Amino acid sequence: MDSALFQENERTAAVTDERKIAHLGPFQTERGFEFSGIQIAYETWGQPNDARDNAILVCHALSGDAHAIGWWSRLIGPGKAIDTEKYFVICSNVLGGCQGSTGPSSLAEDGQPFGSRFPIISINDMVDAQALLLDQLQIQTLHAVAGGSMGGMQALAWSVRYADRVRKCFVTASGAAHSAMQIGFNEVGRQAIMRDPKWRGGDYPLNDPPRDGLAVARMLGHITFLSEDAFGQKFARRLQGKEAFDYHFGVEFEVESYLNYQGDKFTNRFDANSLLVLTRALDYFELKDLSPARAEFLFASFTSDWLYPPHQSETLHLMAKNSGRNSDHILIDLPYGHDAFLLDGEVQGSRLREFLG
Amino acid sequence: MDSALFQENERTAAVTDERKIAHLGPFQTERGFEFSGIQIAYETWGQPNDARDNAILVCHALSGDAHAIGWWSRLIGPGKAIDTEKYFVICSNVLGGCQGSTGPSSLAEDGQPFGSRFPIISINDMVDAQALLLDQLQIQTLHAVAGGSMGGMQALAWSVRYADRVRKCFVTASGAAHSAMQIGFNEVGRQAIMRDPKWRGGDYPLNDPPRDGLAVARMLGHITFLSEDAFGQKFARRLQGKEAFDYHFGVEFEVESYLNYQGDKFTNRFDANSLLVLTRALDYFELKDLSPARAEFLFASFTSDWLYPPHQSETLHLMAKNSGRNSDHILIDLPYGHDAFLLDGEVQGSRLREFLG
Repeated sequence: MDSALFQENERTAAVTDERKIAHLGPFQTERGFEFSGIQIAYETWGQPNDARDNAILVCHALSGDAHAIGWWSRLIGPGKAIDTEKYFVICSNVLGGCQGSTGPSSLAEDGQPFGSRFPIISINDMVDAQALLLDQLQIQTLHAVAGGSMGGMQALAWSVRYADRVRKCFVTASGAAHSAMQIGFNEVGRQAIMRDPKWRGGDYPLNDPPRDGLAVARMLGHITFLSEDAFGQKFARRLQGKEAFDYHFGVEFEVESYLNYQGDKFTNRFDANSLLVLTRALDYFELKDLSPARAEFLFASFTSDWLYPPHQSETLHLMAKNSGRNSDHILIDLPYGHDAFLLDGEVQGSRLREFLG
Repeated sequence: MDSALFQENERTAAVTDERKIAHLGPFQTERGFEFSGIQIAYETWGQPNDARDNAILVCHALSGDAHAIGWWSRLIGPGKAIDTEKYFVICSNVLGGCQGSTGPSSLAEDGQPFGSRFPIISINDMVDAQALLLDQLQIQTLHAVAGGSMGGMQALAWSVRYADRVRKCFVTASGAAHSAMQIGFNEVGRQAIMRDPKWRGGDYPLNDPPRDGLAVARMLGHITFLSEDAFGQKFARRLQGKEAFDYHFGVEFEVESYLNYQGDKFTNRFDANSLLVLTRALDYFELKDLSPARAEFLFASFTSDWLYPPHQSETLHLMAKNSGRNSDHILIDLPYGHDAFLLDGEVQGSRLREFLG
């Protein structure tokens, strides 16, 4: 194990079996907010080679965390496309998140959560924090950066902002900029939170957060992650644990039970202000130019993904080609909706393995 | 003017220029709830002919009202597809609604709003109330019944439940039963309302309703009414009244302003409990058999309508054919999303004119 990792393990109380915390010192956001210090939670799998040039940085989506080997188990692991026997794989929780990295629920210097004092951040800020982490891990050049959805935007930002540090860039189920509809869905989620009286302008006690607003936002999210087909196959019109309707506003259909369960469960692990901060970063993101990039690109999209429709990946592919980069776009015919980028190890995986090899 | 109409005008205080109120006496719902009396708000255009067989009943969608000549102005009027110079056109606010007909915000016998005491109702109940209205208007046979979305379900229910009273049935942007995804969207809207503390189990004062929950539900509704294309053409990534971001959680993009405006505006004209009752009726609706029907059918659907996708109309068309009915299904290529059924006077209109003629 390299010394930087060892150091982190030594000085960090919050370390679990796998999660490590990197203290990265002062950090200034793109918009000029100055943190006296930030911390980034991360995990790694595999080992760096002697040249330290076999690292792959994996970037997570909106509600993800550093535990990529969990949420991207179809792609990451021994012998898988992102082969942990071959590559040194790193994933960190984003700045602004709530899974160990500095975010709105972190305590500021006065011992209170940042809450409304947390700044607006950008995809670039997330990437800058990751770059500091890589410095600490003594990784100068990434063999690849890879991500889906919001993770794909981070990968794109890496390819432009740290062009010399990225050889290959894999972007799945993502886009160059949110469309009006994507912004609209995010805005409904934000309003569900901000119109919950428990949001209190962002300064709620962490043990009494705006759970209902956050749950509604998450329920909506879960609809946008699937497709009509996926919903139909998963739930159809089946009733929840009964043979006939009760005729009330409680749960009747399985799909209602599923959405409420997912919404409520989410409030135990996710901070409402983080959702605001991260969806804002998503909506602000607008990649206009890939010409600074030096990497080779692979884009993937899914026919049934109506949240990040394939034409957005095709646009990215054309941007890369027009900037003189090697690029490919694979359109994958699977019925899972946006979630396909998490679920498909096979098609995505075999092409990604080839791309990385 | 026929005597029933005249009577209504005489005895009803709430009559506006066009809206009339029919008091229909005791009413029992499918589920056995007994109203001591219901009232139905309605409007009419054109005149009944001597045989009283030129009536067309128009059925409104979730948030519609009796003023069909307003929300379906592309199809209804002098010389239009539903020609008010030729037909006697009737539209009533549904039972359970909040635009003049008996609904959860109506006062019960104790002088308080029904609120949580209002029963679960069905599409069949809406149709039964309309049938009583037609009795009062001395209309035995409908030349046609027509509706889109929830209105289409009412038209379908008419064709089966009152098979002998319906000659032609026009159903646009609708379906035989909600899919899991359609139920899911409704459930998110219901939860936005029911998780608003101001909902108070359904028994809120009418001057202090769960506005925020209702606004969020409506914002979500507005996204599902449009298509990605329609959103893109209408808003793109334009900012709201400024040239640069303010970097906050207030309105940045035009689409955010639009959705919030629509959501808030809706709370001034719509009752939250009505939204619960009507979305439940939508979700419960399941047409399994068109064989009792005697009408001729015309179905229309729109390529960009992902809320009521064209395959649901095709299924209805096949059900009608398999029941031996004359039936046609026109798939219309327009980019407006679900709203197309309200916006398209031309393609839908010319085929409908032919169908009715």
